[in-house]
Amino acid sequence: MADQRFFERHGPFTLQELAECSGAELPEGYDAQTTYEDVAAVDSANATQVSFLDNKKYVEAFKKTSAGACFVHPDMAQFAPEGTVCLTARNPYKAYALAAQKFYPDKILTQNDHAPTAVIHETAEIADNCLIEANVVIGANVKIGAACIIKACAVIDEAVEIGQSCVIGANATLSHCVLGDRVSIYPGVRIGQRGFGFAIDPAGFVSVPQLGRVIIEDDVEIGANTTIDRGAGPDTVIGAGTRLDNLVQIGHNVKMGKNCVMVAQSGIAGSTEIGDFVMIGGQSGIAGHISIGSGVRIAGQSGVMKSIPAGQKDYMGAPAVPLRQFMKQVATLGRMVREKKKKKS
Amino acid sequence: MADQRFFERHGPFTLQELAECSGAELPEGYDAQTTYEDVAAVDSANATQVSFLDNKKYVEAFKKTSAGACFVHPDMAQFAPEGTVCLTARNPYKAYALAAQKFYPDKILTQNDHAPTAVIHETAEIADNCLIEANVVIGANVKIGAACIIKACAVIDEAVEIGQSCVIGANATLSHCVLGDRVSIYPGVRIGQRGFGFAIDPAGFVSVPQLGRVIIEDDVEIGANTTIDRGAGPDTVIGAGTRLDNLVQIGHNVKMGKNCVMVAQSGIAGSTEIGDFVMIGGQSGIAGHISIGSGVRIAGQSGVMKSIPAGQKDYMGAPAVPLRQFMKQVATLGRMVREKKKKKS
Amino acid sequence: MADQRFFERHGPFTLQELAECSGAELPEGYDAQTTYEDVAAVDSANATQVSFLDNKKYVEAFKKTSAGACFVHPDMAQFAPEGTVCLTARNPYKAYALAAQKFYPDKILTQNDHAPTAVIHETAEIADNCLIEANVVIGANVKIGAACIIKACAVIDEAVEIGQSCVIGANATLSHCVLGDRVSIYPGVRIGQRGFGFAIDPAGFVSVPQLGRVIIEDDVEIGANTTIDRGAGPDTVIGAGTRLDNLVQIGHNVKMGKNCVMVAQSGIAGSTEIGDFVMIGGQSGIAGHISIGSGVRIAGQSGVMKSIPAGQKDYMGAPAVPLRQFMKQVATLGRMVREKKKKKS
Repeated sequence: MADQRFFERHGPFTLQELAECSGAELPEGYDAQTTYEDVAAVDSANATQVSFLDNKKYVEAFKKTSAGACFVHPDMAQFAPEGTVCLTARNPYKAYALAAQKFYPDKILTQNDHAPTAVIHETAEIADNCLIEANVVIGANVKIGAACIIKACAVIDEAVEIGQSCVIGANATLSHCVLGDRVSIYPGVRIGQRGFGFAIDPAGFVSVPQLGRVIIEDDVEIGANTTIDRGAGPDTVIGAGTRLDNLVQIGHNVKMGKNCVMVAQSGIAGSTEIGDFVMIGGQSGIAGHISIGSGVRIAGQSGVMKSIPAGQKDYMGAPAVPLRQFMKQVATLGRMVREKKKKKS
Repeated sequence: MADQRFFERHGPFTLQELAECSGAELPEGYDAQTTYEDVAAVDSANATQVSFLDNKKYVEAFKKTSAGACFVHPDMAQFAPEGTVCLTARNPYKAYALAAQKFYPDKILTQNDHAPTAVIHETAEIADNCLIEANVVIGANVKIGAACIIKACAVIDEAVEIGQSCVIGANATLSHCVLGDRVSIYPGVRIGQRGFGFAIDPAGFVSVPQLGRVIIEDDVEIGANTTIDRGAGPDTVIGAGTRLDNLVQIGHNVKMGKNCVMVAQSGIAGSTEIGDFVMIGGQSGIAGHISIGSGVRIAGQSGVMKSIPAGQKDYMGAPAVPLRQFMKQVATLGRMVREKKKKKS
Repeated sequence: MADQRFFERHGPFTLQELAECSGAELPEGYDAQTTYEDVAAVDSANATQVSFLDNKKYVEAFKKTSAGACFVHPDMAQFAPEGTVCLTARNPYKAYALAAQKFYPDKILTQNDHAPTAVIHETAEIADNCLIEANVVIGANVKIGAACIIKACAVIDEAVEIGQSCVIGANATLSHCVLGDRVSIYPGVRIGQRGFGFAIDPAGFVSVPQLGRVIIEDDVEIGANTTIDRGAGPDTVIGAGTRLDNLVQIGHNVKMGKNCVMVAQSGIAGSTEIGDFVMIGGQSGIAGHISIGSGVRIAGQSGVMKSIPAGQKDYMGAPAVPLRQFMKQVATLGRMVREKKKKKS
């Protein structure tokens, strides 16, 4: 059960309500008015709680679960223990997410709440129902849409524009950027600082003015301590729905498409273009001035040095190659080490 | 000599005092009442200062040292120059650490000192002898134990619990977490934000509520700008005595054991379990949903994709293999490059 | 055109003024009094704007540019379309940088401007013409030179010394350090915290007091969320003119020379020495206690485990080897994978 000091639980909800909000199918032969009080992991849930099975690694735990109900793929329902009601869905993790959101909904902001210690420039325009926490600093000509939360000690520099229903994390820093609606910026994120642009000269480097912005489209999430530099002339763009994990680096002029995923500690060098639904594994690096087509998936710790066209699937390694080729490289090297051993003996 | 603007030195201390506080052996034939004024590196120490030899790379510097006294392993004492007194210990670096702590002890807090610009919620409970610096923000229902230091602009969000004698660095952000005693959080650390959890759906990603916490046990140190996400349902746990370096990433639901070490820029993906005394080199990545047994050591830049049982020692490479195998891979590849060259010529 | 909400443009400037400020050659047969209003990228510039060609990847775009004038290498001028005036220079990117600085110069500070909510200790000495933004915290005995900008929520801890014309980014944290002139610290940077130094002991780790400082020489730039630990006894030093990108890690006691470049997410472990004009690619790691000579260039994602003497050029791979050798390794492995396939068929 979630710690009630940190999380406020709603409910209980009936089987019918959970099926409706999640799009899962109500099982036959069960009372649709049975109520459930909470969500929980499959190995800790009890009879009053709802769980889910998504990753096949946890099938054994599912077979022994005490959960009262469980979101599962139709193919897996056969493994449910007696006493666990199966709410079946093609995407059980999504169904669970929607049910969990019902138990733990986001707070709805219904009034202005600006901390007296927030320093808000007189020219800033802040729409209704925003929560501005203590010691926030908001610069001249900033525009903030309705129902935003700006957490403590965040700094919103001059002329930044933020859409509706955004959350800006504590100690985050925004400058030279325009954010869409429902954008979520985690604590310590840095957006809009100068890109790494300078001319190399034996007498010392010469800074190139960085005259672009950062454009963050709707529904983007940006993880803690991630850094996104503003463009050198063109803008840096993060497409709608894209999610960046913690400690990610985005260089100047990068254009990312919609619904991309970048796992923690990965980075994209300057001026590279990324399509839609591109997945980039943790600690991977993408070189500058190349393009990665829509739908490409790059495994963790890869180093991508050349463009990859759309339609290609999985890449891995440094330098990155198609996944099958990477697997063969690993196998070949392993075989050679063994063969050398044999010759010796 | 340490810059007296930044460090307050105590002492001088006698040879006897230094032997006692450090557990080193007092050498025979020396006056135990001889005093020393400071600690210093082996290549810069003078006759009034105490140094140490730990890394064999510095034996040559040791042979020429002007240090008045030196902590060394008994086997190395033979290399000491005339005039340098050897304080011998099996772990000379530890002995040096304890002596240096005597010259430069942590400040002892003996009164409440809350900056007038700190914004402390009226429901927060702060025990005695805490130093709360300027512009700190402390939310509702926070509990802070005795003798803690909260540095400037740190943000402690609602209901966070902090034990005794902790230090929270400037501009750090804590939410949804519970800290033990003597925990040290460096500047810019992010603890307790939402984990990277969402269901992938063609219509857009669906966020999975992250309902766990972060539990930081006693004596943990967490380096600058490191990020630790809260659990999705279970908690994220950092075991007692563990030390994380700067810019480390810990995903949701990770469980780390006691006295682990993670060097800078390494990361652990979600739901992985780490035993006790595990060492993880810089820039290494550990995949999600696996387990690393106690005592395992992972070299820098490794990529660990499969579980490693306890008792195994050193791993390296991406994908990570036992160190000996990695070395053979490197040697084999080098040999093949050379052989190809020969054929050509 | 740069967004006028974020950037204030000067000009227009004549062809002659642009040639003079940039050191480029004025072309013959053109009116030196023709004026230009702005800078822009080669693929978006119009007849009133000045652009540049530096990276050969963009020659095709250059052939079709509508730019009124363009900084180019003399060898490339032949590809200019009719109507585009060529300002030729051996280093066209540098010439462009100087011209762009003329259109978008740094603000000149001509008076003291200390925000009323900045918390400045009474013993701090702040020279003339500094801009101290809201909620900044400046500790006891801090010294700040003339014409510095300290952005919102930055924390300058006790006794830190900052030279003239420095910029300290929002939410950055400085302690135990001394900065030269014209140093630029980006948002979220952490300088001067304790290094990762402790003695390993079965009973628990013992912290080694970190008694050194961080010395940042003139004209250094340090990217967002980068971390630089103070020395253990000796100082950590970043040489004049060096530029660090975002999310870089510098361990205790590291000495970097002048005019080095470190790309994002790279790191240097403790006590390593780096010469002058060393280039370190993104996500590379340099082991501790080694030395890298002047002029060495290390490609992205490399892992350098041994010292490299000055005069050597390019290194790549993990473990890093000379670039040619790395390329051969990649080619050899590829060949072996193909040969195995053939045998099978």
